Amino acid sequence: MNKPTPLSGFPEFLPSQRTVEREVIATLSRTFELHGFGNIETRAVEPLDQLLRKGDTSKEVYVLRRLQEDDSAKTESSRSGGMGLHFDLTVPFARYVLENAGKLEFPFRRYQIQKVWRGERPQEGRFREFAQADIDIVGRDTLPFHHDIEVARVMLEALGKLSFLPGFTLQVNNRKLIQGFYAGLGAPDVEETMRLIDKLDKMPAEQVGKLLVAEAGLTEEQAAKCLELATITATDDSFVGRVRALGVESELLDEGLDELATLITATAPLNTANVRIVADLSIARGLDYYTGTVFETRLDGYESLGSICSGGRYDSLASDGKTAYPGVGISLGISRVLVPLVQKGVLDGDRKVPSAVLVAVSDEESRGQADEAAQRLRAHNVACEVSPNAAKFGKQIRFAERRGIPYVLFATEGGYEIKDIRSGEQVPVDPATWTPAEEDMTPRVISTSSITGNDNEEKK
Amino acid sequence: MNKPTPLSGFPEFLPSQRTVEREVIATLSRTFELHGFGNIETRAVEPLDQLLRKGDTSKEVYVLRRLQEDDSAKTESSRSGGMGLHFDLTVPFARYVLENAGKLEFPFRRYQIQKVWRGERPQEGRFREFAQADIDIVGRDTLPFHHDIEVARVMLEALGKLSFLPGFTLQVNNRKLIQGFYAGLGAPDVEETMRLIDKLDKMPAEQVGKLLVAEAGLTEEQAAKCLELATITATDDSFVGRVRALGVESELLDEGLDELATLITATAPLNTANVRIVADLSIARGLDYYTGTVFETRLDGYESLGSICSGGRYDSLASDGKTAYPGVGISLGISRVLVPLVQKGVLDGDRKVPSAVLVAVSDEESRGQADEAAQRLRAHNVACEVSPNAAKFGKQIRFAERRGIPYVLFATEGGYEIKDIRSGEQVPVDPATWTPAEEDMTPRVISTSSITGNDNEEKK
Repeated sequence: MNKPTPLSGFPEFLPSQRTVEREVIATLSRTFELHGFGNIETRAVEPLDQLLRKGDTSKEVYVLRRLQEDDSAKTESSRSGGMGLHFDLTVPFARYVLENAGKLEFPFRRYQIQKVWRGERPQEGRFREFAQADIDIVGRDTLPFHHDIEVARVMLEALGKLSFLPGFTLQVNNRKLIQGFYAGLGAPDVEETMRLIDKLDKMPAEQVGKLLVAEAGLTEEQAAKCLELATITATDDSFVGRVRALGVESELLDEGLDELATLITATAPLNTANVRIVADLSIARGLDYYTGTVFETRLDGYESLGSICSGGRYDSLASDGKTAYPGVGISLGISRVLVPLVQKGVLDGDRKVPSAVLVAVSDEESRGQADEAAQRLRAHNVACEVSPNAAKFGKQIRFAERRGIPYVLFATEGGYEIKDIRSGEQVPVDPATWTPAEEDMTPRVISTSSITGNDNEEKK
Repeated sequence: MNKPTPLSGFPEFLPSQRTVEREVIATLSRTFELHGFGNIETRAVEPLDQLLRKGDTSKEVYVLRRLQEDDSAKTESSRSGGMGLHFDLTVPFARYVLENAGKLEFPFRRYQIQKVWRGERPQEGRFREFAQADIDIVGRDTLPFHHDIEVARVMLEALGKLSFLPGFTLQVNNRKLIQGFYAGLGAPDVEETMRLIDKLDKMPAEQVGKLLVAEAGLTEEQAAKCLELATITATDDSFVGRVRALGVESELLDEGLDELATLITATAPLNTANVRIVADLSIARGLDYYTGTVFETRLDGYESLGSICSGGRYDSLASDGKTAYPGVGISLGISRVLVPLVQKGVLDGDRKVPSAVLVAVSDEESRGQADEAAQRLRAHNVACEVSPNAAKFGKQIRFAERRGIPYVLFATEGGYEIKDIRSGEQVPVDPATWTPAEEDMTPRVISTSSITGNDNEEKK
């Protein structure tokens, strides 16, 4: 085989880089579980007819075919309409909830961290295979509004713990607020108005204003008010007064204002230097199925990536005809955040192996003794590996160095000595009890200053 | 959507069942890392020409096609020969090693725990999507034999920690031993002889003997010796004498006997009541690419599942023409072991949610106070959830009970009280410091006595 080349859109990490992804996944998982979210995984494939219900993403689906499948024959998968790889974790989750409704307890909180696949053209921050982390809370028949606050809080807390990443701004809005506003204003086509307003992050306001008149049938005055609404942002409930000042009235608008004010008031105390939540009345989330709260998230300094964490409230995540399952959720694009940062070298692991210690081997006859010393270290959770050969100690130390292993353990006449190869310090130790400094126990994530703008070369 | 039905061959777990799989994955990962194995993940897809190099599995490959891809057009994927889902973790790993050889340190130890896909007909223990855990050590140009011992030890140690599973028997043999034996015996077709001996677990010895004569061109006496060799098993190096007694001589046989004796002597001390390693000279691993040590593993009481953990030594895992990368590895079929045990109800998690505590809500006005108490618990790693409603306390307790949450926290006039809903005991606590018993902190795996044959209803 010639040297293979990477497949565009299918990013992979080197072992040290994978440390970053694992740390993110572990931190997210721990936080979600502390809040009572249980983990599930769903199969990678779903029936095509389910995948294609969301019309506009249909082109991105990867369809599966068994290699030996006869195209002309009525095979198992073609009889059932075929199968494709899931392109998000919401469609499979909705199916899982319906399939297992009788065995789940509602409200059902779950998190799911899996790869998804989309056959779209690869570009910065867009991949054909990527990892997502989703949290959702789903009720049977009803789901109180306080769960909207809950998912925002949980994701804010999780993002806040990822201190090696750039800061995040979680932008929140409410569909009832904007739909109620447009309706109260007398907009002839509320859906179309919302769809055009959603273009504000890609198009100048002036141009959107013209489209609102030409395509959504608004008067110029109405269009101006819609654009003015979309300029409102706030980190507290002060936005309510600014919306009221626009003089539009509707019951749905009142409901939306009340929900958004409640959410922003309840979550504002979680704001830190690194993670902020703001009410941003320009957020609409396109034509998705959201019916209340909507979320988007920007990564500081990487705004061109678009929203890296999105979601909202949907009155009917799934329905079997008799019962509807309302939900609220939010989905973090793990690959979308990490791949650019890792590929730029901004984030990496500080070593290539989990080992904190290399156990040196003085000659092949004493390998058994080295193995035993290694097992004594492992017995109290110190990861280590035994030198693959009995080269000169200088060579074994350089072997450790190349891997980023901080310590080398040597057998001496009386027992063992350990060398910190960074300082050169060497001291007698008992492998059964010696433990490295806490920060040397496992590989750590290091980030260069370029993302934080300060002078720290490394921070955990 | 009507209630969806499960897809045959694509098993999924309920939230409590997923506890079992997560515990297995966490235990394996911890053990592998203690031994210096770093984690990587590879993309789910590989070029079809790479997937089809292992001729006899080609029929099982799932081929990918983008839904909107024009069959007649020369699309990106068809130009490059198409892509398919990986059917094991060895092919992708070999490609990853070649692709990143310049950035890896050799010997390179890695573990990989991912789903793989095979389009074969579903049956007991065989799935179309399943999880595997692979460990491999790969050298550049050379890889000393002591790494064969290392992978056996690491997997034995990992399996030994999965104490809630039935026992395992790791069967080990050596290709050099059997090939040297057949060659020394004068077998005209060593490969064919090995292929037929590999049928011994599905076919009576007498019938295999006839095939050895008819298809491998052995004399009846030679066939009888081959069958006799295959009956030899031992938990120490006593098999060497029994092989010698068959009177066959060859250098390759000597080498194989020496390697297998070294391996079994070095690993025998790891035998426990639950996990055993035995030299079993019937193990051949079919026509795979193994060149020395070979492993298979049987699960006690579930022998019909076949080998649930297999692997061995391959002199050339990958090669770019100039450099060969020899390796030794072993692969555990996580789904193959767990899905039958979980579906039979033999293994499950002891609760449906991660929460150790339900924080009761006396009325909606005090929800903020309940949220605060929950955050105080979470601050010292006690997972909890707040009651979704302010129903009567009896109803809230039953809500906790249905989820398997052991404790309910109530606000009282003076502070808080916690009730262990199993014993009914209720005591005043401070949420900022109170911690449940260690075994209540996180969901645990429970196993019924039917797998261990003893009277313990539960064991960790």
